Amino acid sequence: MAVGAYSTEFSPVPGVRLSAVSAGIKSAEKKDLVLFAFDEGSETAGVFTQSHFAAAPVILGKRHLEAAPTRYFLINSGNANAGVGDAGIDDALACCEAVASRAEVPIECVLPFSTGVIGERLPVDKIVAGVPDAFARLSEAGWLEAAQGIMTTDTRPKIASRQVQIDGTTVTLTGIAKGAGMIQPNMATMLSYVATDALCDAVSLRILLHDAVEHSFNRITVDSDTSTNDSCMLTATGKSGVDVARGEARDKFGAALRDICLALAQGIIRDAEGTTKFVEVQVASGKDSRQCLAVAYAIANSPLMKTAIFASDANWGRIVMAIGKAPTEVDTGELNVFLGDVQLMAKGQKHPDYTEEAGSRAMAGEEITIRVELGTGDAAETVWTSDLSHDYVSINADYRT
Amino acid sequence: MAVGAYSTEFSPVPGVRLSAVSAGIKSAEKKDLVLFAFDEGSETAGVFTQSHFAAAPVILGKRHLEAAPTRYFLINSGNANAGVGDAGIDDALACCEAVASRAEVPIECVLPFSTGVIGERLPVDKIVAGVPDAFARLSEAGWLEAAQGIMTTDTRPKIASRQVQIDGTTVTLTGIAKGAGMIQPNMATMLSYVATDALCDAVSLRILLHDAVEHSFNRITVDSDTSTNDSCMLTATGKSGVDVARGEARDKFGAALRDICLALAQGIIRDAEGTTKFVEVQVASGKDSRQCLAVAYAIANSPLMKTAIFASDANWGRIVMAIGKAPTEVDTGELNVFLGDVQLMAKGQKHPDYTEEAGSRAMAGEEITIRVELGTGDAAETVWTSDLSHDYVSINADYRT
Repeated sequence: MAVGAYSTEFSPVPGVRLSAVSAGIKSAEKKDLVLFAFDEGSETAGVFTQSHFAAAPVILGKRHLEAAPTRYFLINSGNANAGVGDAGIDDALACCEAVASRAEVPIECVLPFSTGVIGERLPVDKIVAGVPDAFARLSEAGWLEAAQGIMTTDTRPKIASRQVQIDGTTVTLTGIAKGAGMIQPNMATMLSYVATDALCDAVSLRILLHDAVEHSFNRITVDSDTSTNDSCMLTATGKSGVDVARGEARDKFGAALRDICLALAQGIIRDAEGTTKFVEVQVASGKDSRQCLAVAYAIANSPLMKTAIFASDANWGRIVMAIGKAPTEVDTGELNVFLGDVQLMAKGQKHPDYTEEAGSRAMAGEEITIRVELGTGDAAETVWTSDLSHDYVSINADYRT
Repeated sequence: MAVGAYSTEFSPVPGVRLSAVSAGIKSAEKKDLVLFAFDEGSETAGVFTQSHFAAAPVILGKRHLEAAPTRYFLINSGNANAGVGDAGIDDALACCEAVASRAEVPIECVLPFSTGVIGERLPVDKIVAGVPDAFARLSEAGWLEAAQGIMTTDTRPKIASRQVQIDGTTVTLTGIAKGAGMIQPNMATMLSYVATDALCDAVSLRILLHDAVEHSFNRITVDSDTSTNDSCMLTATGKSGVDVARGEARDKFGAALRDICLALAQGIIRDAEGTTKFVEVQVASGKDSRQCLAVAYAIANSPLMKTAIFASDANWGRIVMAIGKAPTEVDTGELNVFLGDVQLMAKGQKHPDYTEEAGSRAMAGEEITIRVELGTGDAAETVWTSDLSHDYVSINADYRT
């Protein structure tokens, strides 16, 4: 199940070649090994999970990212290489080495990524054996296959492209993402890779990425659970020759980057495990961003809210409950609450014109908007979430069987 | 569904009479109105929800509790009298007035409680019409019927008694509780009422109750959601003549009170909505209580942990994930993790002797213990939770239909 349409169109990014092959980590024939190759001169920035149990590839990848210019990403799905202690680092190193020796680059030029089951040793032999095939298939046209190759419980690939005119030249951004459960990224996302042919220095690239992530991947939740493997990478090949590090070019590029990250993040929510609804939670007129987010996540992560949404039940008492438990100050006498364009609550009380029929109509569609006005300031935040369905339970109860 | 056996035995408490009648708030014939009558000279203490949207009976009850000695509790199930604004206060007052005038006591001697659907006006006429019948049926033997009368999505009544010898005299404590969903009490519980024939001044009684609640109702979670109506009350009639306010008597009584509150709190978890498992999460050798609770609740509230437990799947990677996202410092290199008596993790790595078979055996029963040793201090905390099943989704998707 998933909500809304999705696109598989994309524009290749000059300087980026990709491939996806089947290394036999997942069940037979499924693509589970993805290779990114970046031309020399590319700059890469990344943000990573803040889990105390960051997976081995996250630990090693951060180290490599600091040590040398990144030339390759090697990504496997089916196994997270997390929670296996020091052996995980050795395994990730062995995979990087297979790429580095084949490409004749220092091992630090290769970043490893893994996603899948936690706590099992990585099948290094299978991955190493798959590397030559991955090199053989590298192509600028490989984006969609790569998006498919990083999927786990995802039912559809997430891919997005944007093109923006800067100083008369077209700059391209294309990105992919995966993730459907264990989603409440904390300064990162599940796995997402965005590349561009813009030119950008490393420091500016990192700032641009952090800003984009903060308003996209850091604003979504499926189940309040945070992955050990979250990583979001941005690579700029510079092939367009357009420098986007400063001024108007930076503004234009930054907007396009936020836009593509938001499209990918929302793509994750539209394909959330078992979801039947795409839910936007807006919290406005708050004191500050922190207050708005506390209220938004109290609603978005409430199992009782999520089951009511699954049932298309305008059980607005559960919105009241969820706002009531938010770990922040709330002046209930100032609260306005809307479901779509139907006002449920005015100044903290049930709106006199509210009817069950109007509430039910607002809950009937696949796309639901909950809007809370706190009435205490000028800050606003929006987060996106899914509902809690029988399929969520089934998918996660049966995950390893 | 519910886990484990339960008892319906209780000892009456001298000075306390109760009744439960059907006022027609819930569907026909179900008991939904409960009256407690306390003899003159009783002292009552209470703790209440910290929801920003505290329900009208909570607001009014706190006011009455401060204003006069409590003589009556009037409790209805089927309607929470929450989220309806000032009208809720008027409705609760009208119900109290019906009791006060019939008993010829000041209205402040009556405390109102409500539980059920949020956001609908209380059917005051039905409640007022039920009051004479409730008075007529008052009896020291009414505890079990009262436990049934306050149920909503509960499948079984929660009732417990303890007797303790103090200075050669028997002191009795008996309590009831309700609650199965919207359970992560915050300084209170859903609804719980404990009475004793001990003698105790108001201030000591409040301290004793707070201490007991902190280690029982404030240590359980079903779904991380906090009710607008949570209330836990303790009434001491003094009929035994045994003063428990100080010294050894206080220690003995306090232990019995903690014990009965824990039994009732665990009774709520055993009857949690849709639950198939009773899960104890122990976090030991932590720096302080706050750190232990942060880790314990990260595990206990994780939807992915809860679905794995529902599936009896020893997917210990999800424990790793949950500890990883806990909002506190964790030294992963010091972590030991146990599932029942099977050690999953030693010093932050998979234990060399761990096998899937051993893990599956530890997950097979209805009673699951997860133990985390943080290795950074002497603090320890335990919380109790349920699993996340298809029935949880069904119960909460269909709640109002």
